[in-house]
Amino acid sequence: MHASLRLGIAGLGTVGASVVRGLRAHGDELAERCGRRLVVRAVCARDRTRDRGVDLSGINWIQDPVRLAESPDIDVFVELIGGASGPAEDSVRAALASGKHVVTANKALLARHGVELARLAEKRGVSLNFEAAVAGGIPIIKTLRESLAGNRVDRIFGILNGTCNYILTRMQNERLSFDVCLKEAQRLGYAETDPTFDVGGFDTAHKLALLTSLAFGSEIDVDAIAIEGITDVTLDDIEKADELGYRIKLLAIAERAPSGAITQRVHPTMVPKSSAIARIDGVLNAVAVEADFVGKLMLVGPGAGGDATASSVIGDVADIARGTALSVMGKPAEHMTPYLKSNGAEHRGAYFVRLSVHDRPGAFAAIAARMAEREISLESIVQRARRPSADAPGDAAPTEAQPVIMLTYATAEMDLRAALDRVAADGHVASPPRFIRIERF
Amino acid sequence: MHASLRLGIAGLGTVGASVVRGLRAHGDELAERCGRRLVVRAVCARDRTRDRGVDLSGINWIQDPVRLAESPDIDVFVELIGGASGPAEDSVRAALASGKHVVTANKALLARHGVELARLAEKRGVSLNFEAAVAGGIPIIKTLRESLAGNRVDRIFGILNGTCNYILTRMQNERLSFDVCLKEAQRLGYAETDPTFDVGGFDTAHKLALLTSLAFGSEIDVDAIAIEGITDVTLDDIEKADELGYRIKLLAIAERAPSGAITQRVHPTMVPKSSAIARIDGVLNAVAVEADFVGKLMLVGPGAGGDATASSVIGDVADIARGTALSVMGKPAEHMTPYLKSNGAEHRGAYFVRLSVHDRPGAFAAIAARMAEREISLESIVQRARRPSADAPGDAAPTEAQPVIMLTYATAEMDLRAALDRVAADGHVASPPRFIRIERF
Repeated sequence: MHASLRLGIAGLGTVGASVVRGLRAHGDELAERCGRRLVVRAVCARDRTRDRGVDLSGINWIQDPVRLAESPDIDVFVELIGGASGPAEDSVRAALASGKHVVTANKALLARHGVELARLAEKRGVSLNFEAAVAGGIPIIKTLRESLAGNRVDRIFGILNGTCNYILTRMQNERLSFDVCLKEAQRLGYAETDPTFDVGGFDTAHKLALLTSLAFGSEIDVDAIAIEGITDVTLDDIEKADELGYRIKLLAIAERAPSGAITQRVHPTMVPKSSAIARIDGVLNAVAVEADFVGKLMLVGPGAGGDATASSVIGDVADIARGTALSVMGKPAEHMTPYLKSNGAEHRGAYFVRLSVHDRPGAFAAIAARMAEREISLESIVQRARRPSADAPGDAAPTEAQPVIMLTYATAEMDLRAALDRVAADGHVASPPRFIRIERF
Repeated sequence: MHASLRLGIAGLGTVGASVVRGLRAHGDELAERCGRRLVVRAVCARDRTRDRGVDLSGINWIQDPVRLAESPDIDVFVELIGGASGPAEDSVRAALASGKHVVTANKALLARHGVELARLAEKRGVSLNFEAAVAGGIPIIKTLRESLAGNRVDRIFGILNGTCNYILTRMQNERLSFDVCLKEAQRLGYAETDPTFDVGGFDTAHKLALLTSLAFGSEIDVDAIAIEGITDVTLDDIEKADELGYRIKLLAIAERAPSGAITQRVHPTMVPKSSAIARIDGVLNAVAVEADFVGKLMLVGPGAGGDATASSVIGDVADIARGTALSVMGKPAEHMTPYLKSNGAEHRGAYFVRLSVHDRPGAFAAIAARMAEREISLESIVQRARRPSADAPGDAAPTEAQPVIMLTYATAEMDLRAALDRVAADGHVASPPRFIRIERF
């Protein structure tokens, strides 16, 4: 058997503690599978006194993550600090520069500096593995980086944020408002005190940027992503979607046109109830890949949680222990193609449009005319008198704005936007028109 | 860049031709991803004149697969002949013995001789990769062998045969008989002229035997699998299951008890309509893994088809090209644990029982008494008068046997079998009682 593989772990939150536990619980089995033992030599975390439910005796404690990263006592630096800069970035750079393999769960860091770090790792001939950075326990990085090597991927999409999916699922199932479900998610520890990063779609975007690069062999470009979070999704949207046979999910979608131009988008999406992706509920994540040879593949599993994420971290460490050497983004950084951004206005699709229309003669005709001007065909229009409500005594007033839902046939997004701008300018609506993209995967 | 990796492909059916096409179509990209070119040097197939829709010019044609396997002109032998013995076995052994890496899609061969072949490959320090042998394009071998290294797998189950799933889905959706759907599957090329291997559950069993070994680190034992195919599943079963909220799927299930004892079973299974596995329709395959750290993971994709299977074959070749070296069954053959078979009678679960009961006084009371003797609780009983049918004029005769469906609560299979034996011996039923296991994943 080879010499032990010596690990240094920076960051002992939920994931870090689970990694230490997993390495202990399955130490013998891992040694058999990898041909050598995996040993935690040193750790680094802010609070040394906290009880993490795991025995850390015999493991060195190093205060400074950069010093841990450079320590000659370790072969692999496991970065679980998080953040696109600061100690996480400094220590990963230090580890690679000193010839250490790196395993990280840090999507923000890689979304910002992935190509540069890949170059550094490849120059030093070390691994930079990040299965845990996208979709927790789901082995989507390995699938794209290795299994699908013989494919041209055309599209990848998925539910990459468990917090958002939990909130949308609760809204759907319990008919609760966004705010109530967000509070519930915070109470259960699924959402942070400042939930912007999750519900604003930014976490999903970071993950998508990495998948896009792996899928298409292109450089990472998180800034090219059109991001819309779930904060504006109302219970009314969800109920109307339900009536029309749809669910609303926060999807990450990346597509490559035959020209090579890439579209990346993160937005609430209406998907048919019967579709597989519509049925991914709660904190689950799912990633679907469409490629020329394999066809369509979907992976479903836990997108977060200490143990599930640790499963991916340990899998990455095991690869290093076995001597598996891979280009960080599936192909050498020098061969990655520049990111070719498609013109977002090119997007064609069906749309769910929500208007709040003043109840006066001619309003609806004027709206319909604006849509016709842009040659937007309507599949259905739902206009229903509001139910009178005791809570809102003004509700039944005749002059009050009425909700109108329109479903369009496939149309260019630039045409829809232009038509809705005109509708708003005409003054027939009480609030800015909103739309949700429909995808029929 | 390293020297090219030279392949010899034995078997040019649908999969073989797709592999050649895929290697050509994505040659440059594969070279970038692997750091070397993948070149088909020689092929071997029975009929040289057949048009396979792929250009084979410049590729050597060797008649004898064993000679191809031993050729000093190749580094990797790709076996796509099929069959547990004969030319497939001979050529794979020859390739390993002469120090060639092997990639195969041959589940029958590995289910029978996998451990021995693993030993041979490991002795020679070469790879024996078989992603394509289980679930076509789904990367379940890599997931078990690599990604989940840090887990203790407790259960693995799935739909592993597209033919059976196509037939059951058609029966369900179109309310057609097994025979009609089988003929349709044969017409579409989803089923062989002799469909026994698929519909009898044997193909599923071969695949399960490999997954079990990978999941539990135990030796392969296909003979330990209790196999029941779908030939006895009637449209009536499917309709009754539907009424009760279930779908019937042919599932492969492997479980390991805390004692280490393993159960492997292949049988028609009733699963709740709302479960993810119930929604895998048509020729799709799905594999679910339950493990201590990752929790539950499910992979869904094409279980067969030339291109999807070729995707897995090429992924395996790419691993070899990159120099990835893995134990064949995830851990060295010498460390695989002997297969510890659990006593099948230990299985506890709920059951769907179908009886054909003679319509005479006391029959039902007698049956209920036999169930009570074994302390089997019934969740529900469905007895319905038959619809009179013009096709079967005897149908409405008062003495005719009536279908009775019982759903049991969780009970030991040995108790159910004993009770049903007594029921049959009592003479109240017109045909042997049948049961279908219910699983609530």
